[in-house]
Amino acid sequence: MATTAVDVKELANSYVFVADMPGLKHSDIKVQVENDNVLKISGERRREDAVQDGEVKYVRVERSAGKFMRKFNLPTNANLDQISAGCQDGLLTIVVPKMPPPDIYRPRTFDVNVTSGNLGQ
Amino acid sequence: MATTAVDVKELANSYVFVADMPGLKHSDIKVQVENDNVLKISGERRREDAVQDGEVKYVRVERSAGKFMRKFNLPTNANLDQISAGCQDGLLTIVVPKMPPPDIYRPRTFDVNVTSGNLGQ
Repeated sequence: MATTAVDVKELANSYVFVADMPGLKHSDIKVQVENDNVLKISGERRREDAVQDGEVKYVRVERSAGKFMRKFNLPTNANLDQISAGCQDGLLTIVVPKMPPPDIYRPRTFDVNVTSGNLGQ
Repeated sequence: MATTAVDVKELANSYVFVADMPGLKHSDIKVQVENDNVLKISGERRREDAVQDGEVKYVRVERSAGKFMRKFNLPTNANLDQISAGCQDGLLTIVVPKMPPPDIYRPRTFDVNVTSGNLGQ
């Protein structure tokens, strides 16, 4: 499994996920929503060439390779229909907009007219 | 300090250094040769926005940020004048060609003519 570091930040109107994807293009990465509340990022990092082809000898191996998968619970106010994702310079950015807040319940205070006479009797 | 994973591999005619640089462009990275035998890679990874600006709240921070610097001893047969480096999709690749091998010393075996008469006497 390849390691994949992810930052998550909250802005006024959205949540933003930023993931390190060095060497990957947007077509190498899969972004999905599962069960309406889980954001799933998956893919595979391959070495550029095979060790076993005999012409390449690895002197040092620090970069992780292999399949990767990360899952994140999405907040209840995530607008699932408006999620967008882009990849540039090996950095994946996923923007999850927030739903507009529901109308807030405010206890009302108002006057009721008092007229002379019986009420509908 | 930001972490920077580097692979080093040896090919028939060159050494290749591959470094993860997610989010960095080629202009953000410095590649130098020191004292004719040390390859130095340095730069800085910055977060895309400042935490202290009040509008961004980091919910999760896994990606490393800050300055980075890596040094590698170069083999004696490295051709320093032909080193090239490129950065694409957050991946830095440095190619250090090998010098052509020096002429190999081979003990010689050959005939010496034997003539009649004294040698220069």
